[in-house]
Amino acid sequence: MRYREYTPLKDGFSTGKLNRITDVPRLRVGHCTIDRDQLTIVRTGVTVLRIDDVISKPVWAASNVFNGYGKSIGLVQVDELGTMESHVFFTNTLSIGAVQQGAVKIALRECHDITSFNAVVMECNDSYLSDIASLSVTDSMAIEAYDGAVKDFKMGSVGAGTGMVCFGFKGGIGSSSRMIEIDGREYTLGALVLANFGRTTDLKIPGLVDVNFEEPQRDGGSLIMVLSTDIPLLPHHLKRIARHLSLSIGILGAPGYHGSGDIALAFSTADRRDPQALTIGEDGSIMSRIFKASVWATVEAILDSMFSSPYTKGFRGTVPSILDSMYQ
Amino acid sequence: MRYREYTPLKDGFSTGKLNRITDVPRLRVGHCTIDRDQLTIVRTGVTVLRIDDVISKPVWAASNVFNGYGKSIGLVQVDELGTMESHVFFTNTLSIGAVQQGAVKIALRECHDITSFNAVVMECNDSYLSDIASLSVTDSMAIEAYDGAVKDFKMGSVGAGTGMVCFGFKGGIGSSSRMIEIDGREYTLGALVLANFGRTTDLKIPGLVDVNFEEPQRDGGSLIMVLSTDIPLLPHHLKRIARHLSLSIGILGAPGYHGSGDIALAFSTADRRDPQALTIGEDGSIMSRIFKASVWATVEAILDSMFSSPYTKGFRGTVPSILDSMYQ
Amino acid sequence: MRYREYTPLKDGFSTGKLNRITDVPRLRVGHCTIDRDQLTIVRTGVTVLRIDDVISKPVWAASNVFNGYGKSIGLVQVDELGTMESHVFFTNTLSIGAVQQGAVKIALRECHDITSFNAVVMECNDSYLSDIASLSVTDSMAIEAYDGAVKDFKMGSVGAGTGMVCFGFKGGIGSSSRMIEIDGREYTLGALVLANFGRTTDLKIPGLVDVNFEEPQRDGGSLIMVLSTDIPLLPHHLKRIARHLSLSIGILGAPGYHGSGDIALAFSTADRRDPQALTIGEDGSIMSRIFKASVWATVEAILDSMFSSPYTKGFRGTVPSILDSMYQ
Amino acid sequence: MRYREYTPLKDGFSTGKLNRITDVPRLRVGHCTIDRDQLTIVRTGVTVLRIDDVISKPVWAASNVFNGYGKSIGLVQVDELGTMESHVFFTNTLSIGAVQQGAVKIALRECHDITSFNAVVMECNDSYLSDIASLSVTDSMAIEAYDGAVKDFKMGSVGAGTGMVCFGFKGGIGSSSRMIEIDGREYTLGALVLANFGRTTDLKIPGLVDVNFEEPQRDGGSLIMVLSTDIPLLPHHLKRIARHLSLSIGILGAPGYHGSGDIALAFSTADRRDPQALTIGEDGSIMSRIFKASVWATVEAILDSMFSSPYTKGFRGTVPSILDSMYQ
Repeated sequence: MRYREYTPLKDGFSTGKLNRITDVPRLRVGHCTIDRDQLTIVRTGVTVLRIDDVISKPVWAASNVFNGYGKSIGLVQVDELGTMESHVFFTNTLSIGAVQQGAVKIALRECHDITSFNAVVMECNDSYLSDIASLSVTDSMAIEAYDGAVKDFKMGSVGAGTGMVCFGFKGGIGSSSRMIEIDGREYTLGALVLANFGRTTDLKIPGLVDVNFEEPQRDGGSLIMVLSTDIPLLPHHLKRIARHLSLSIGILGAPGYHGSGDIALAFSTADRRDPQALTIGEDGSIMSRIFKASVWATVEAILDSMFSSPYTKGFRGTVPSILDSMYQ
Repeated sequence: MRYREYTPLKDGFSTGKLNRITDVPRLRVGHCTIDRDQLTIVRTGVTVLRIDDVISKPVWAASNVFNGYGKSIGLVQVDELGTMESHVFFTNTLSIGAVQQGAVKIALRECHDITSFNAVVMECNDSYLSDIASLSVTDSMAIEAYDGAVKDFKMGSVGAGTGMVCFGFKGGIGSSSRMIEIDGREYTLGALVLANFGRTTDLKIPGLVDVNFEEPQRDGGSLIMVLSTDIPLLPHHLKRIARHLSLSIGILGAPGYHGSGDIALAFSTADRRDPQALTIGEDGSIMSRIFKASVWATVEAILDSMFSSPYTKGFRGTVPSILDSMYQ
Repeated sequence: MRYREYTPLKDGFSTGKLNRITDVPRLRVGHCTIDRDQLTIVRTGVTVLRIDDVISKPVWAASNVFNGYGKSIGLVQVDELGTMESHVFFTNTLSIGAVQQGAVKIALRECHDITSFNAVVMECNDSYLSDIASLSVTDSMAIEAYDGAVKDFKMGSVGAGTGMVCFGFKGGIGSSSRMIEIDGREYTLGALVLANFGRTTDLKIPGLVDVNFEEPQRDGGSLIMVLSTDIPLLPHHLKRIARHLSLSIGILGAPGYHGSGDIALAFSTADRRDPQALTIGEDGSIMSRIFKASVWATVEAILDSMFSSPYTKGFRGTVPSILDSMYQ
Repeated sequence: MRYREYTPLKDGFSTGKLNRITDVPRLRVGHCTIDRDQLTIVRTGVTVLRIDDVISKPVWAASNVFNGYGKSIGLVQVDELGTMESHVFFTNTLSIGAVQQGAVKIALRECHDITSFNAVVMECNDSYLSDIASLSVTDSMAIEAYDGAVKDFKMGSVGAGTGMVCFGFKGGIGSSSRMIEIDGREYTLGALVLANFGRTTDLKIPGLVDVNFEEPQRDGGSLIMVLSTDIPLLPHHLKRIARHLSLSIGILGAPGYHGSGDIALAFSTADRRDPQALTIGEDGSIMSRIFKASVWATVEAILDSMFSSPYTKGFRGTVPSILDSMYQ
């Protein structure tokens, strides 16, 4: 199920064919999931946003830290150079190092003479549903996720999203896309989130009645937001987009909390030598439309992380699905 | 009229006595207004948030630029030192220099041996309703606003808010406050905004039916958000609060636009030597409550900038009041 | 006299024809000076770096704050948009507002339908030699400086540099330039500084014997560094250059002090649509050469602010020229 | 051999007993080294700056990125919260993930109920002397370095410094300390660097004759600078110190290069509840002295990374020791 099946989202944009970030060329998404109850309960994994040829053809990129209670790897160099040479990996908080080692091995496999590599690894904390201290994620899981990346990927409780909780409901991986016409040509914007934040009492879902659901509140939680587009844009344009993505938190009714690592990354899959980048992002009315499409794609991605996820029992508690609790 | 008269705002906090930023000790607000139709149409002015003894006893402070299409003065030093030695002035975009000269004269009057002074002057652009190129604001207007500062100040179309437009309605100066209990002691948080941003079609007002109102859209517009509290907090805590204030834009339904100078400032009026600052802001659950109270105080301040403002004709067009257009 | 007349500066680059920032196309520099002993002692002024057509054709630009004990105006928007639409003005700390009003009047004169304008005004504090509280600088001085801008401008104690002190010696306006060949084409880099920082005991002048000179130390002081070039570079490249300029402080032997507003601005005068910007700054070896030329041009500009300046008596004390004290 | 044996360093401060960062209470340093020529040449390792009780008693901290061509882990959260809960680990560029996994295991061993942990891992690239693609560093090497940490640690080619090159000479781990008296009480400042940057032709060593030594230049290289002190200071004070450390690059004659990850970290080992933090860093003249002591401690640490290191043959070339080449 997707959110759009319950209510139309009238933001003025149409979606791409899959309504996923993979509607943007060059992109695929892969998962590797651990979901077991033996010895200890482990619900975790790795998700990768795979960008074709990114190691040989880095992309313009920028990040923004809205609330830096987070451990993401690789943002320093992305923001210095305005380029990203890595696929984007997602996992649990304590396993970022294992996944970084996997990302390096993929880079060495793709390009034999590498002596430096800036892996990008983002994380949220899944310790409510998973025994995070078991350090169950390995570098080979990153490679497995990468090798299995596809266009029509699963959302919700899968890969890095397996153990995530969002607004008190089961969350995880969410995605959506938007089409945008600029100077007679159609471009795609896509959002991918790892959603693990928010409190039930805050949640406002555009177009649906308010949540009326009492659940013991958990502390912490984070939100990783990735926005990709084939619009040629420069790093300073992408920085602005990354900053705007955090408004999705407010649109869903939340004020942001102390223990939430709310971090955004934006990149363009266009050729870095495309001279249109010198004009498109300098047009204020185009940038305003891009901000709007990006923020609403992120809102929908967060909602679909919940609408795609089932009821789940875990390590420290139980998390209902949004559909079980609200709409059925 | 205030927004609360139409619908309760259920964020879990009570307001201060005046439901204004001046519920926080040490604070008063003054205005000086130009509202004339002679020679050319001028609707502009100066507003000042006056902080008792701030020149001799600077306050811990921090700013955050959400979207830097703005010209505010004084933020560089505030963010370097974590202290603010100035009252906070508001005016139109082109007049920040005149008001800075007024701020310097006030400082020299208050403290004779000053040789350096970091005036803080924030701005929004009122050129839709006012002939901004007339450069009608003078340094003495800043002094007049300062001398007339009071606790129970006017909101809406007054002082720097005279020419402002918000979500297509008449906006300007808005304010609200929240009470918060920490370790058995009650503190106050107050928000003051200069609201001049947003598009009518975006607006969602919590608790009220959606806006159904067509108005020619204007470009640009900005939002200045100031949050003050008597809670002892350190600069790095205030930086976090300033960053969270921008979520108020999302809560009201807007994705942020290119030409909007969305800038936030947060400061604590507590004694900078109060050792409680070393513990209060280090408690994550307290910070989460402060974030929530701050964001919702800002939301209400923006709404009251509209609920307090009348229908207005101006230089390039006419702007309805929110009450004329929506609720009467 | 210039520093190069005393010792060669072997950084591997040749200088432009004037060895000034004005070797870069589109640039001129103008001054308006107050240097009087009547009623009170006033040694201050305005300097402007005039950029041809900048209002209609803004330039790619970026700033960096090394130590933000400073009051410069306009940096927020420069860093958000990566563009600068203003000439660059310099004056004393308390007069930035007067000069901002002058900058707005120049903009309105050049372009009649302006309703928003982001003036860039930088400052240092000249209160040791000048009665800064007299607020002697007016908006018309900015206009006068602008109207008189030339290629072969004066350095040292002139315009905004009139009251400045650098490493205990008379300082002020300094400038130099470097030629750099990229892909067979020759480009120019130019530095312009307002130098008012440092302690005598720190000073190391490359190629000259150490200073052996005791002077009562003053507190505070600042350094404004501007780097311009006709190399097509993007905002994120210019941000990196601006950050590197602060190394000039270390090269001259200083560790940086609390009260010093050390702020850098870098911009490219090339056409913003020049597609070479998409490749030049992405070549690491070119960027390394640009960093080196930029830092050493800044070092020489600081030295020439001192080598160009005479012995001066002022408001609170007397400041020797570097030549009087060291080398004659 | 240490630099001070060749020339006095007259910065006005005395050193601590060991002239190492470990003169600061709570600190020890440990190494684990790989230095072998079998199968492939590997010269790499792990170094850890161990902070007593840091997991249960996090320290005030801040980082600064001077040139972000670097992959360090953990800075986002340090800068958000102003606190560091991790020991500081150093290794080669590609092995940060392995060391992060080691850091997490140490944290889990020290504190069993951890579900989140922000490991701090810094890196430089040792691929000139070591086969970096062999991925030879393991998580257990981080644990071994940690378990062996001592006060009187080795400098130069050891641990993470084993494969480092600085100004064309053998570099690596360097350290020094300074004593500073504040209000009648003596405090210690200590610097620890991983030095792997600079070109021979740039190098100026204070008090010694210029280098006259031709060596094929390598690209890239980085500098990690850590400054610790028992002076009670707040995060915004430490941020300023971290920013000043980069001046050490200029003092040694270098302009900074594109491929250098020049990153600084500053932290205070004092109790975070010590109310003196509210006053010491607010005194400008004290901060100026702290800046000076910190910058010069960093300069000496970089020099001692070279003066402590022997002549070394490696994977792609040979690197002389500074003593072999210059002074003997």
